[in-house]
Amino acid sequence: MKICRFKSLDRVAYGVVDGVTVTEIMGDPFGRYDMTSIRRHIDRVEILVPCQPPTFYAAGLNYLAHVTETAEARGEEPDVPEKPDIGYRAVNALIAHGETIVIPWDATEEVQYEGELVAVIGKKVKNVSEEEALDCVFGYTIGNDVSERSWQRSDRTMWRSKNSDTFKPMGPWIETKVNLRRMMTTVRINDEVVSEFPTNSMVFGIAEYISTMSRNITLYPGDVIWMGTDGATQNLKDGDVVEVEISGIGVLRNPVVREAASEEKSTEEGNE
Amino acid sequence: MKICRFKSLDRVAYGVVDGVTVTEIMGDPFGRYDMTSIRRHIDRVEILVPCQPPTFYAAGLNYLAHVTETAEARGEEPDVPEKPDIGYRAVNALIAHGETIVIPWDATEEVQYEGELVAVIGKKVKNVSEEEALDCVFGYTIGNDVSERSWQRSDRTMWRSKNSDTFKPMGPWIETKVNLRRMMTTVRINDEVVSEFPTNSMVFGIAEYISTMSRNITLYPGDVIWMGTDGATQNLKDGDVVEVEISGIGVLRNPVVREAASEEKSTEEGNE
Repeated sequence: MKICRFKSLDRVAYGVVDGVTVTEIMGDPFGRYDMTSIRRHIDRVEILVPCQPPTFYAAGLNYLAHVTETAEARGEEPDVPEKPDIGYRAVNALIAHGETIVIPWDATEEVQYEGELVAVIGKKVKNVSEEEALDCVFGYTIGNDVSERSWQRSDRTMWRSKNSDTFKPMGPWIETKVNLRRMMTTVRINDEVVSEFPTNSMVFGIAEYISTMSRNITLYPGDVIWMGTDGATQNLKDGDVVEVEISGIGVLRNPVVREAASEEKSTEEGNE
Repeated sequence: MKICRFKSLDRVAYGVVDGVTVTEIMGDPFGRYDMTSIRRHIDRVEILVPCQPPTFYAAGLNYLAHVTETAEARGEEPDVPEKPDIGYRAVNALIAHGETIVIPWDATEEVQYEGELVAVIGKKVKNVSEEEALDCVFGYTIGNDVSERSWQRSDRTMWRSKNSDTFKPMGPWIETKVNLRRMMTTVRINDEVVSEFPTNSMVFGIAEYISTMSRNITLYPGDVIWMGTDGATQNLKDGDVVEVEISGIGVLRNPVVREAASEEKSTEEGNE
């Protein structure tokens, strides 16, 4: 089942997507809810980010080819993580399917996509075993972990490289039933495939991450865990349209625009 | 004015603290609200974390003596940040004034306090100048950035060293009027002063952080920015009571308990 969050006539609601129809639900999608009789065409509603995570987790380096190829690009030795140490991203950066990725005026050309599977937590859990870990997953959605590589190298944290406004497209909806072993992640820029990999070929799987995290951390409904990406990535530029498709979930599509350097901003920069 | 969030008779509300009296308010403390006639003695309500931040920011290394003394303790060269690159903490770890800091059963002895000033954002802002930056601050509260130092050294991220459940006491309330230049931060363990420093003697001030962050990031009401701590820090142990006092705001007090290693947990560990 596909659960989306949407806006229609200035009202925000959750709905169940079936083909081109969104049926509004009443109640808590992570808890108890009822279907209503309100139906809308999906093109007539504004799709929103599927949930506002209390905490926004990200695995970072979690596919071998991504670790080795990005290290190669930097002329460094690959540093494959030895254990699932989870990282963080920030809520300010989230945008929905269809919204615009804005490249800041002072970013370099190295603003790149990263197509990622996102696990959405559905239950409050602590100390869950690896065997039972997937039971607390409500469903899966798609993320694009947009990254400015020069800032990623120069800054002490990943605050602007990974978390500038609009750098975290997530959606279009949450699919509650998937077959992890059969899924493929495909990234396209302007309809051309630039990246493709089996979604589940992770260094540390979702169950291992959740079980390890839950030893120290309580997970809450709506928390999201972005699982990382594979392979080398390419630059996004003004006018591009970037799509991340994961088979069994759907397509997350976002246009890209580069922010114009206003005179005021350029002058400020010149004065630094 | 002191604004607190509290629970009374299973109901959560915001209130204004005056001496020992909490007067409930109706509406949004960050927006429009009215005082009600409901008053309670502060000892008769349960003080909660003063807000649930959409994004939880932390400056990290932001006082000279902390950078130099902690580097010394590790036998390393001090690495003073060259610019205000903001970091992140996680909402799962927040606890209120009076709640218990739980040291995980598998933590080392090196679980340490860090007394910090916390700026609470009151307005949605982007691209704010340093001169105008403090206008978006709603008020200030107190944080204790509890840290397990061995995990801080061994892990790729600070997920469990800084964000294990209960590792982020924050409160007791938000003070809307402070004189930053006159404030002192004092940390006490079991009534003994273990750390004391002028609160505002930061490497990068609050206005500089907010202005820099807001170039790339939209800040939202309720976002919190933990400003870092000064000096070397000491271990907390089972049975301790740790207090962080910042003059002009109040005292954040939390007892400390070490989690017992259950047989099951020890066995699991033994099997690894």
